[in-house]
Parts: sequence; C-alpha cells; structure tokens
Amino acid sequence: MLIEKWGIFEQSFHGKSDGNPFTDYEIHGTFTHEKESLTVDGFYDGEGIYRIRFMPSYEGEYHYQVSGTFSEEIYTGAFTAGAPSGNNHGPVHVYGQYQLAYADGTPHYSLGTTCYTFDLQKESVVEETFAELEKGYFNKMRFCIMPKHYDFCLHDPAAFPFEGTPVDTSALTRDNFSQYNGNPPGNDWDFTRFNPVFFQIHDRAVQRLMELGIEADLILFHAYDRWGFSQMPMKDNLRYIRYMTARYGAYRNVWWALANEYELLGNLSSEDWEQMAAVLTASDPYGHLRSIHNCETFYDYSKPWITHCSCQRCDHYKTTETTSELRKLYGKPVVWDEVGYEGDFPHCWGNFTAEELTRRAWEALIRGGYCGHGETFLSSDNIIWWCHGGRLKGECAPRFRFMMEFLKDVPGHGLKEGNVRDDLHFQWDDKVAVPEEDSYEGEYYFLYFSIWRPPFRQIYVDDDTWYDAEIIDTWNMTVTPAGRHKGKYELKLPGTQYIGIRLKKCKD
Amino acid sequence: MLIEKWGIFEQSFHGKSDGNPFTDYEIHGTFTHEKESLTVDGFYDGEGIYRIRFMPSYEGEYHYQVSGTFSEEIYTGAFTAGAPSGNNHGPVHVYGQYQLAYADGTPHYSLGTTCYTFDLQKESVVEETFAELEKGYFNKMRFCIMPKHYDFCLHDPAAFPFEGTPVDTSALTRDNFSQYNGNPPGNDWDFTRFNPVFFQIHDRAVQRLMELGIEADLILFHAYDRWGFSQMPMKDNLRYIRYMTARYGAYRNVWWALANEYELLGNLSSEDWEQMAAVLTASDPYGHLRSIHNCETFYDYSKPWITHCSCQRCDHYKTTETTSELRKLYGKPVVWDEVGYEGDFPHCWGNFTAEELTRRAWEALIRGGYCGHGETFLSSDNIIWWCHGGRLKGECAPRFRFMMEFLKDVPGHGLKEGNVRDDLHFQWDDKVAVPEEDSYEGEYYFLYFSIWRPPFRQIYVDDDTWYDAEIIDTWNMTVTPAGRHKGKYELKLPGTQYIGIRLKKCKD
Repeated sequence: MLIEKWGIFEQSFHGKSDGNPFTDYEIHGTFTHEKESLTVDGFYDGEGIYRIRFMPSYEGEYHYQVSGTFSEEIYTGAFTAGAPSGNNHGPVHVYGQYQLAYADGTPHYSLGTTCYTFDLQKESVVEETFAELEKGYFNKMRFCIMPKHYDFCLHDPAAFPFEGTPVDTSALTRDNFSQYNGNPPGNDWDFTRFNPVFFQIHDRAVQRLMELGIEADLILFHAYDRWGFSQMPMKDNLRYIRYMTARYGAYRNVWWALANEYELLGNLSSEDWEQMAAVLTASDPYGHLRSIHNCETFYDYSKPWITHCSCQRCDHYKTTETTSELRKLYGKPVVWDEVGYEGDFPHCWGNFTAEELTRRAWEALIRGGYCGHGETFLSSDNIIWWCHGGRLKGECAPRFRFMMEFLKDVPGHGLKEGNVRDDLHFQWDDKVAVPEEDSYEGEYYFLYFSIWRPPFRQIYVDDDTWYDAEIIDTWNMTVTPAGRHKGKYELKLPGTQYIGIRLKKCKD
Repeated sequence: MLIEKWGIFEQSFHGKSDGNPFTDYEIHGTFTHEKESLTVDGFYDGEGIYRIRFMPSYEGEYHYQVSGTFSEEIYTGAFTAGAPSGNNHGPVHVYGQYQLAYADGTPHYSLGTTCYTFDLQKESVVEETFAELEKGYFNKMRFCIMPKHYDFCLHDPAAFPFEGTPVDTSALTRDNFSQYNGNPPGNDWDFTRFNPVFFQIHDRAVQRLMELGIEADLILFHAYDRWGFSQMPMKDNLRYIRYMTARYGAYRNVWWALANEYELLGNLSSEDWEQMAAVLTASDPYGHLRSIHNCETFYDYSKPWITHCSCQRCDHYKTTETTSELRKLYGKPVVWDEVGYEGDFPHCWGNFTAEELTRRAWEALIRGGYCGHGETFLSSDNIIWWCHGGRLKGECAPRFRFMMEFLKDVPGHGLKEGNVRDDLHFQWDDKVAVPEEDSYEGEYYFLYFSIWRPPFRQIYVDDDTWYDAEIIDTWNMTVTPAGRHKGKYELKLPGTQYIGIRLKKCKD
C-alpha cells in the first residue's frame, strides 16, 4: 500500500450489521509512529462495512491496531508513509497570528469560492464544476454537507443524508418555496441512520478537490432547509458531527465551517453552538481549521476553538475595508467568505458588478485578510455557480487567479496594512500594504488606489534604497514595469480605477 | 426707493475718516415695522462712506433711524417693502427638525457646489462661473471669504481683505508651496483695517448668487493660508466676524460656515470656536443658517448655535450612507458639503468618478440629507472648479439638476429613510425613502438600488391602493413609466447600476 505523508490511509472491515450499526457499534484505530500516536474513530459505511481513515503527519513506519464493538477481532498492521508528492503540502493551519500556511510551511493565501451543493447535482454539472476548478481560479471551495432549499435551489439533491422520506415537492414553485421552509409535514427521517450513498458522494468531492490542491470548507449546518435537518435534536447534531470528523478528518484539505449564517438556525442557542464546537474540536485529532459563518452578526471569533474569522459582510457598503480592525479585534486570520456575488440576481447580495467584487477582494488582501469569490447569474438551465456549480459566466474568476499570482510574489506569508508615514513618504490618504513579517520590512510596498483614479503619484521611501516600481492594474490584470528608482520621484498612472503601485527592493 | 420683502435696503452715509474708522467709530440703524423692530450694525466702506444694510422680513412701511459715533447727525427715513418677486422666497431656515425651507414655506433641497475662491479670480473666469451657475445645476455655492493657498491654488487673489503687504511669491512653486503654509516672513498686515475693495468683490458675488436663487455659504475661516489670516489674534477674528455680519447679514441667501476643516486651524481651541460662534450668533439679527465644517472629525453639531450639520466624509468608503444615523445623533438637517470631487486630481479626494459622486449624493437624498457637488479636473489653464470656478468639465452637474427635479416632485418638504417592512412588502435589503412628513404616509415610495443591479423587483404595498410606478435611472437621468399597479406585482428593471423605483399613489 503506497501512502504518503498527509495522504490517506484507509482500511475497510466487515463487522456487525444487526440492529443500528450507526449507533450500536463503534470502531477506532490507534496509529503509532516514532513521533506520534493517534487514536481515530472510524465509521459505518453500510452493507456491513466499517472504515477507518487516517492521515499520517510524518514519513516513516506506522503500526496500527483497529478494534471496537463492531467486531470481536482486533486488527493490526503496518504501512510506511512516503514523502509528499505533487501539490501535497499538508493541511492548512494558522501561521503566526494572522496568516495561513500548509503544514510544510508553504504560504496559503485563501482565495475561495462558494458552490453550496455542487456535488449533489447531476454528474454532468459536477464535471462542469471540476472543469472550471481545474483552471486554478480558487484554492478553497465552501460547500454544504446538508442539501439546500432556497430560491433558485429547489430540486431534490442526488441523495439524502439519512434514511427516510423527503417532503413531497410536486406542488413546490419559486413563488411558494418559503412555505416549505424548515420542517414541513411529509418528512420522515431516521436521524440515527446515515445514508452512506450520500456521504460517498461527498467523499469523492473532497478527494477530487484535494487532488486539485483545493481546500474543502465543509459547512456542517445551515438554515436553508425543507427537510428538518436544521432542526434536529442536539443528540442527533452531535452524532452527525462525530460522523463527519470520523469520515472526513483524514482529508488534509478539510476545513470545518460549523455553520453558514448561524443566527438563522433559530432553535440553536449560543450554548448549543459551543457544545457542538467542543465536540467538533475533541473529535478531530488533526486540528483542522474551524470557524462559523454569520449572516448579519459576527459570531464571537475570540472563542478559543475558532481558528480564523469566517465573515459575511455585516454592512452592505463597507465590508473588507474593515479587515485591519477585525484582525486587531479578534487576533486571528480574517477570511471573508461572503461579501457579495457577481451576478444578476434579484437579491441585493447577488447582483454585484465584477469590478466591485474584485475591488472588495483587494481591499481585504491589502489589509492582510482574504476574500472569497461568488457568482449568481440567472440561467435558463437554472444552474447557478453559487449553488450548483456548473460553468462560470462572470468576469471575476480570472481576477482571483491574478490575485493568487500577486500574492505568491509577496515576501514571507502575506501582507498587512502598513502605516502611512507622518512625513508623507506616502500620501496621508494612501493605503499601503507591507509584508506581514517584520523581517521583510522595507523590502516590499503595495499602494492600492481602489475606486480612486490618481493620474500620478509622488513616491518617496528613503534617499538611498533602490526599488523596482510596477504599475498593477488589478482589473485588467496587467503588471507594467515603471522603472528603478530611489529618493523622491513621480510615477505616472493610467488614471483609471483599481490601480496599484508595487515597489520591490532591488537585490544587490 | 423700491424695496421688497427679503430684499435689501441699503443706505450710505458720509462720516468721520480720521484715525481708524473700522475701529474708532460705529454706525447702527433701527428699523421699525408694525411687526418687527430690528437694530443692525452698519460698516465702514472706505473713503469716508459708512453703509447700513437691512433686510425687511415683512411687507409694508418701515421707519428707520441711523446713528452712531461715525457722525454727529441722526438720520431718519422710511420706505415701503413690497411683495417678493421672481425667485425671492426669503432666507432658508430649518423646517421641522430635519429639512430646510425658504421663509415663504417653499421647500429648499440643498444641492450645492464648492468653488472656494471663485469671485477672487479674474473677471473672465468669474463670468464663466456664473454662466455655469445660470444653468441651474446647484442652489448653493460654498466659498471662502479669505483667499486660499493650496496645491493648484497658488496665485494671489484679486484683492486682500486687509491693508498691508503680502508675502513675496516670486519663488513659489507647486513643489515648495507647503513651505509657505501659515504665516511666512514677508506678510505685513493691519488686521484692524479692512480693505473695502476686497469686500466689494464679495458683495457683488453674493448679490449675483442671490439673483440666481443660489444660497451663498460663506466660509469665514480656513487653514489654507500663506498670509497669516488663519492665525489672527482672537480680537481680530471677532472684529472680522462682526464686520461680516454687518456687511452680509442683509442678503437673504447668506449661510454662515464658521470654518472649513476647523481642526486644521491648530491655534484655535474649542473655546475659541464657541466664542466666535457666540459673536456670530449675537451679531446676526436675521438668524441665518450656521454651521462649521470638519476635516476628519465632526464638530459637535449638537451645540445649540449650529442649525444643521455640515459634514465632510470622515471615512473614505462610507459617507452619505450614514445620513440617517447622523440625523438621529444630532437631531438636525444633514448637509454633506464635501464627500469627494469628480475629477482627475492626484489627491485621493479629488479623483472620484462621476458615477460615484452622484451615487453618494443619492445615498444622502434617500435618507433625508443633502450632498454637495465638487469638481477637480486638472487643466492646462490651471482653472479648477473646486477652487477657481470657470467651466465645468465633468458629468455630475446635470445629475445634480436632475436630483433637484426629482426632489421637487416629493410630497411635502423632502424625504427620509423608510422602514423596510418585516412582512417583506419590500425586500429586507431594499433602501426605501418616504416623505419626511407623516401626513404623506403611503403616498410616495422611492426604492434606490445604488451599486446593485436587480433585474426585477417584486413590489407589494397593500392590496387596495393603486400606485403609478416609474423606473428612475439616476445616472442616465431618465424617468420611465412602469404602469399603474396594486397588490403584488413584479417590475422589470434595466439590470444596470444606480436605478430606483418611484411609486406615487394615484389621485382619485
């Protein structure tokens, strides 16, 4: 068996299938290496099959022992984890205080997108989605485990998470969909019996994303529901969380989003969320990134279990421009997971221009935060990126890829907002981004002019240091050399919106 | 002598010219009508001439008596104030709590512009400015009494406010202008001796604006100075304020702006400003509108002497969208006198697109506030509207005139932000403007979509009331009828930015 560090060791076992194997039996494995020893839960995958998945964090020999009430037997074995290959840099963790990095130290710049239920669509649509993802626009995909019921997102998913019968939708239309919200009559589910077919769909999606080097930001709970999955009793919620960590914890690309728009799950209290967070944290031995996404009010991101802020705009007008304040307030990386969608939706959050969404992403970036992509174009086939994936129709996606190229050129692990100097080395009204790490001080500056259109800009860092200047057009995705300079000088600018100036200290 | 109500009665008198007539002598007049009796100060206008100006607030016979130390004589006389004619609606005052109206009750929607020193330019430029103003784009002009020294605004004014000698500017350039800031050596002024020629220039400007129906928002102090006028001793400041009220109080179109960017006058304390405000208030018997304009921090607009907020944006991104909060905080009309300038200036406040400045103006308007215009296009002749007036080069001005036409169609005295109803009669994310006065409730709605581009919008006010719907394109300045409706219906929209929907209740 060929396993690599941060890859997945998976083993299946036949076990007891009488009663309810999801609740009546358990399986766990202990994996031992000279540098770690980890016990992980396995899960029942139907038809008498139990599975254990494990992610080795070291190269070298692992011994394991698998046991549990699922079987009278105790299974033992060994494998050797080889060197990571290809785009395998390990799981993403917080780097320093405000940035992210893969386990091997490679910086991670979070430029994600959202397709809430892309893998629960028919196969041809799923393939279209992956064809877009292969273009390298994004390095994170936010999507829901549970199916979604919402305007423009009304057909049944490819499968359901539990055994049972869904509400009858023969009379469901766009005009009456909100009457189905929540848990209308007709649903009949056994929340104690997961549907393995449903989760196998998610398995394949997480795996394919991993192979593409794309993080899977798994949304565990959300309110857009007509099946009652958002209104399960707490004991079912907690069982579901444990099933998720057992099933997906070994995928290096997994992030946990405890909820999307948590406030809209009106039946869950703060105590409930904290209890679920505690179970999530305790049952994930790998410590994947964890957050919870808001609708109109931020969750208290200072809670210790939260690794990074996952923000939706709370203000329609000013969003990512507050990134520096949020970094300071919560002391954690700031990821804007929804600030609006490029599109032509009737809902106000879904008809941004590509220019405005791109601008909001840059406003986050220059302040040492990250902003995700989203797209909501009405379509005759009712396949909309935001919910279904499919084909991208807008203009933003390549601009996110351009951001990634830009970020890879930053010294160290990302940017932060610099101080505009009192002595007007930069203008008082400029926004200057500098490397996050002080060790790179003076090596790199990026001035971003946002909606403003200065025709030229006076630059002065100091008298002695040579810098290569470049004009960056973040909308047209061009980088134009603007000479090597020191002292005080003036750079001519195109006089259009969304322009920046990059200064890189010359290497001797 | 033909005088009309809210017109100007002016009489000149020969008097003593020995010593310093500006400080050694005074002149005042008492004007008596059956409904009012007002004593006003006159002023010395040079060459032995003293003047009294008076604005009658009633029609009918006035008797006056003019006396003072300027002369041994006591002058008496009478005149009859006739009915106001033409565009004479009287001075503008606060109407209700948040709106403005002329003395005859006509609503005043403040849509101003700023040309800081337009009347101190050469005659051909002044004529160009008035030619633009005659097009009816604006109904207020903000400008400075004192000349201005600033980037792109460096030549000497047509005259100086005091007797004396200005700093030598033969070596002044754009690159070194900030070295002249304040009161550099070479200035030699007698602050006790006003220069009548200088104020006669302002007299003509205020008069011509009045004839065009344009309010004159007179800025008394500002920091952009190379002559020391921003650093006069307090006793000189107070004398100057009294001279201003004596000279300009009788013009019905005068508003007092105690300062532009008050914080930048670093030598003046809060107590100083309050003392100057007290003198301004006490010496203006007509109670013209009074405010004080900020740079980065609002003055405390709750001070009793302040009639309305005169705001500059404190945040680069979010400005007029906070109008409702400011109305609530200060309980007064909100006028945004600087939120940015359409243009291609190097300074970030001066290179807004026309679309963005227009949008900011509408964001104020739909919340029951008002936003002024400004323009800063670089020009080979160095004549820039913001400072010098001249010719308008941008695209905003006609859009402000369109706003005025829009506002004249609102029932009552203006708009305020409406409540988006819980029952989703309008969408939760819509911004709805309704008439300020409750007596017009239900008669008029205006939904404004700002940067967003909904392709259609569902509308529902109630089941029974018929409304005429119109699609308003605030950028292209079009009003397109969209049918007569009641109950629930859907309106198709152009899918572009800066669109609104106006609903007017049908008259039976």
